[in-house]
Amino acid sequence: MTTNTTTHLGHLPTPFYYYDAELLEQTLAAAAAAARPGNYRIHYALKANANPGILRAICRHGFGADCVSGNEVAHAIRNGIAPSRVVYAGVGKSDREIALALREDIYCLNCESLPELEVIQQIAREQGKIARVALRVIPNVDAHTHRYITTGTEENKFGFTLDTLPRAISYCREASALQLIGLHFHIGSQITDMGAFRTLCERVNTIQADLQAQGITFPYLNLGGGLGIDYEHPDLHPIPDFERYFATFREHLRPLPGQEVHFELGRSLVAQCGRLITRVLYVKKGKNKDFVIVDAGMNDLLRPALYQARHHIENLTSNGPLSRYDVVGPICESSDSFGQDILLPATSRGDLIAIRSCGAYGEAMASRYNLRDLIQGYFSDALPISH
Amino acid sequence: MTTNTTTHLGHLPTPFYYYDAELLEQTLAAAAAAARPGNYRIHYALKANANPGILRAICRHGFGADCVSGNEVAHAIRNGIAPSRVVYAGVGKSDREIALALREDIYCLNCESLPELEVIQQIAREQGKIARVALRVIPNVDAHTHRYITTGTEENKFGFTLDTLPRAISYCREASALQLIGLHFHIGSQITDMGAFRTLCERVNTIQADLQAQGITFPYLNLGGGLGIDYEHPDLHPIPDFERYFATFREHLRPLPGQEVHFELGRSLVAQCGRLITRVLYVKKGKNKDFVIVDAGMNDLLRPALYQARHHIENLTSNGPLSRYDVVGPICESSDSFGQDILLPATSRGDLIAIRSCGAYGEAMASRYNLRDLIQGYFSDALPISH
Repeated sequence: MTTNTTTHLGHLPTPFYYYDAELLEQTLAAAAAAARPGNYRIHYALKANANPGILRAICRHGFGADCVSGNEVAHAIRNGIAPSRVVYAGVGKSDREIALALREDIYCLNCESLPELEVIQQIAREQGKIARVALRVIPNVDAHTHRYITTGTEENKFGFTLDTLPRAISYCREASALQLIGLHFHIGSQITDMGAFRTLCERVNTIQADLQAQGITFPYLNLGGGLGIDYEHPDLHPIPDFERYFATFREHLRPLPGQEVHFELGRSLVAQCGRLITRVLYVKKGKNKDFVIVDAGMNDLLRPALYQARHHIENLTSNGPLSRYDVVGPICESSDSFGQDILLPATSRGDLIAIRSCGAYGEAMASRYNLRDLIQGYFSDALPISH
Repeated sequence: MTTNTTTHLGHLPTPFYYYDAELLEQTLAAAAAAARPGNYRIHYALKANANPGILRAICRHGFGADCVSGNEVAHAIRNGIAPSRVVYAGVGKSDREIALALREDIYCLNCESLPELEVIQQIAREQGKIARVALRVIPNVDAHTHRYITTGTEENKFGFTLDTLPRAISYCREASALQLIGLHFHIGSQITDMGAFRTLCERVNTIQADLQAQGITFPYLNLGGGLGIDYEHPDLHPIPDFERYFATFREHLRPLPGQEVHFELGRSLVAQCGRLITRVLYVKKGKNKDFVIVDAGMNDLLRPALYQARHHIENLTSNGPLSRYDVVGPICESSDSFGQDILLPATSRGDLIAIRSCGAYGEAMASRYNLRDLIQGYFSDALPISH
């Protein structure tokens, strides 16, 4: 950010999310370019950030939407994503949500259990429709990520194990209102080890080969998302290495001829373009450490408290000598901390602090805990000019 | 809950919070009765639950309010709590929030740092007012509770250590627009060991005696809150043991003659009256375990994901043989789980599930993550009659 931008930001009431429209654009362009050689289709995972400004950019690049609730399906379509580019996943789709997705005639419902298939079959019949469905398969790939966001191993609520898959396939084939069009995989989130994706490819190849041997093939394959970003060095890696990510799949995945291959990227598309901008209320000298108390709290950015996530923190308005601080929020809980022993230039009341890499799972997880105002997001290309 | 009530609840769209107005009333009455012999004043900690229905009951019992944001101060007053019964605490009070509290002429601002005192002094001067303040003191009592909600030990962002207290007192005495009226202590939350409160009393006695020896006395003493509830057996202990809690203070605390003693109870007043009512969407048979997938998620009740909290879970609509289930929500994260290996009567799609002890930090921490609808709360005495 230039000094000009910083001065500019100083006029907005803090805290707020600030999205760098240019970086977002470059990131989406890079992802689109990297996906092209494999003819891969990118579906943006709305749960990372459903801000309409983000969705406008997503639309411009022709990406589809990966939704996890009825409201997300409606929101994606309302914001310009064609229903034919919308996929709806999740272990707990309610009847109302399924009915909405079928009415909107979205591309596919990614299904996670036999009882869910039964309910979709019933609702589709009531609507006189054929529901396009895919089956989420647990490929037993350990993504070596936070246990909260690991979703590809045996003992969790997601998808079909290889044991239960044949029964699900035969159910779909017998169900009058279901059209089974594909398989869905998702092994977790914030994955930086390409080896995990390589293993995923190998499992998918094996699973598809086994099914093909039984005469079962699908036109659609969904590899999920999960590409991680560099929270430690956002300026070193502002744009994730989409080339390497998609190259891994090009090298190791063997889709069937003509098979449409989807990827559900969320965090990797939008995290680095977002900053949480917050103002220093007080610098409190502790006995053994100094606390920078900012006006943003865990209600505005939940990741540090929920996932013990660490975001890079910067002081935008000081060039003083470096010192170590705990950067904490105003909420009356010890969990309301953004970082311990953070190296910052000498920090004082009124300074503007940027918490980096907040474009994903920041605004989307915000709450009004402590009755605090719901935090807003602004885009760099839509800010009023101030003098 | 009677079968009648259960049938009744079945008509509301799930998930929702359901508050037992009668239990709330009994709990508040019990707390008021137990506080009376010590002439203790109860200030309800709004952050636990700011639902207007809760606040109406709080008002009926003449309790004050413990607020942690400007919005909470405004909300408490708007809902009938007299400004003279409102206290405002928190490490990160913004200028706007301090100005609001002073304009509303609330009873006291509990202060946590010297820089905060300086800002209050300045804003009070600008308003031509005298700000009543208390100093939050870190008494170094380990409450042996979750590390996220421990607030009474040395190395955290809250309050003044005994080392820094004298400087704060002398600052207040010299500051023209500050009136230092008391001391504030709060050692943590969900404390069930009365020994921690006894230790707190002993520390407070010592601190007050030391100050008195220097000729420093205050009319106001705030012992904070922290009384825990029985999450495991809500029906065994629907009303926390306020008698024992206040008796501990009557026995061990030696307030100065005429000193007004405040307690900030939140969870203990409202947790047990609240249930999260959610419907079973699917029962999914896993390889080694069965999953009950409900329509409430971590966005509706964050405590299990954030604090690894366990709430008692009941099936309101089945009397079948007992079986073990993982009870999970629809959010696409492994953290979205309300309990592992929970013993429930044979559970099937459509059953109503009650997650107990959710009156505190349930509705208050809810978000719209995954764009899900913001969860609503209903009171048992305000539900429409259904037939």
